[in-house]
Amino acid sequence: MQQALDGVKARVQVALESAIAQLPGGELRHAMLYAATGGKRLRAFLVLESARLHGVADEAALPVAAAVEALHAYSLVHDDLPAMDDDDLRRGQPTVHVKWTQATAILAGDALQTLAFDLLTRDEIGDAGARLRLIRAFARAVGAGGMVWGQALDIAAESASEPLDLAAITRLQGGKTGALIRFAASAGPLIAHADTGALDRYADALGLAFQITDDILDVTGNEATTGKRVGKDGAAGKATFVSLLGLKGAQAEAQRLCDVAQQALAPYGEDAGNLRALARFVIERDT
Amino acid sequence: MQQALDGVKARVQVALESAIAQLPGGELRHAMLYAATGGKRLRAFLVLESARLHGVADEAALPVAAAVEALHAYSLVHDDLPAMDDDDLRRGQPTVHVKWTQATAILAGDALQTLAFDLLTRDEIGDAGARLRLIRAFARAVGAGGMVWGQALDIAAESASEPLDLAAITRLQGGKTGALIRFAASAGPLIAHADTGALDRYADALGLAFQITDDILDVTGNEATTGKRVGKDGAAGKATFVSLLGLKGAQAEAQRLCDVAQQALAPYGEDAGNLRALARFVIERDT
Repeated sequence: MQQALDGVKARVQVALESAIAQLPGGELRHAMLYAATGGKRLRAFLVLESARLHGVADEAALPVAAAVEALHAYSLVHDDLPAMDDDDLRRGQPTVHVKWTQATAILAGDALQTLAFDLLTRDEIGDAGARLRLIRAFARAVGAGGMVWGQALDIAAESASEPLDLAAITRLQGGKTGALIRFAASAGPLIAHADTGALDRYADALGLAFQITDDILDVTGNEATTGKRVGKDGAAGKATFVSLLGLKGAQAEAQRLCDVAQQALAPYGEDAGNLRALARFVIERDT
Repeated sequence: MQQALDGVKARVQVALESAIAQLPGGELRHAMLYAATGGKRLRAFLVLESARLHGVADEAALPVAAAVEALHAYSLVHDDLPAMDDDDLRRGQPTVHVKWTQATAILAGDALQTLAFDLLTRDEIGDAGARLRLIRAFARAVGAGGMVWGQALDIAAESASEPLDLAAITRLQGGKTGALIRFAASAGPLIAHADTGALDRYADALGLAFQITDDILDVTGNEATTGKRVGKDGAAGKATFVSLLGLKGAQAEAQRLCDVAQQALAPYGEDAGNLRALARFVIERDT
């Protein structure tokens, strides 16, 4: 699995670098490339696998994978800002506002979001209708009805009088991390004008399993392997899947969701082996 | 002219309100609507007029006009942040981060950018090819090769050892305010698959005349009519068209650009009367 991810990583990095290289030079461009470099590239992998399952060529899917990773990078840069989660370490490196300035971090994030939409217009993805379906689904996933909505709930929860309950945190994470993961997994059928149902169900379980594992790693992980600060949520008294379910309960729920994700892939038979492996990887990772 | 702008204003407001009303409730949505309300709606007017000149119906152009104004609103919300221009007053009201929080301002701006792209996917705009041309041109105009690039130069200039010269400030403003104005003016030909040349030349002169007039109003205007703080640039020792050309020189240059803009409209003959009037309005406004 790690080998498969590394292969995707190298190709997405080239796609992002070549897109960013076309922008005017300067600090802004450096900060964008810095922010868009590294990470596990799980979302890019999802795009490429979902494309493959629907007969969409890698060349067509690659700009979509790059768009998803550019969008993810923007969300991290803005989430790390002092006015948001105030994080100084990300992927083992100083965050963008620490390495440059807050202004540069705001602008680099803004421009990475724009770049993501730009990438989704690329001719090689497919016919105009396919690209429009992608762009619309992407906008719905990452805006105030999806990712940004989840992030806003997360920020609001910090100053709420009571910690969130399990239903609320599940809903919140469905926006904050789930919506982009769901988009990534649906890219193939969206391009091929096919039904997204099975991959939606897979992605919903995968996204939640991913977030539960993130919460587990915030307790059991260390900064050297995760590349980010750990123990922050507990210290802040924030409700997490671990605080609500206990460590063992959270691990069991992640395993259950991994099973749900794998079962959702049944219509694809053996072709979905990589996505099954990804579901296991997501809950077994230490990074 | 003011009457024509008021008509556009009402229709764009309805379009933005109905788009934002479809998002989940909460503070984020309130902040988005607050940020997207008010303003002169010059850019929306440009979209609707450029559409009319190319036989594109108002109904098709309206989502594009709303997209341009949503994008403009996002850029103002982020520019006003303490880490950027640190403004507390906008359109006569407290800025978003003053009324809510910095986190809400960052997220509302982020989501308004996303909403802009979402609006550009609307079926009523035209065929898929037309919408893709718009989305691509929009992304190029507002990202790290256009608006955000100009804003990054502007921020960098504040800490530079020497003030910018006329060529540098003209280039900077061509990105910061010019790129979105140019997109707005080209929306009609982009939808109609026609040549954008004449409207590009019009918009480039108009955008620069607009910015020069902004600099003039920063010196001669007052907060009651402009709805924002004045005299900030001079106090900060920032190079502006007024500091570089003098007040009279800046006024003469704005007038010259107004003439250039009007001449660029020659191919449209009398049909372009509203755009000619807009060019005069832009340099004669006190708000």
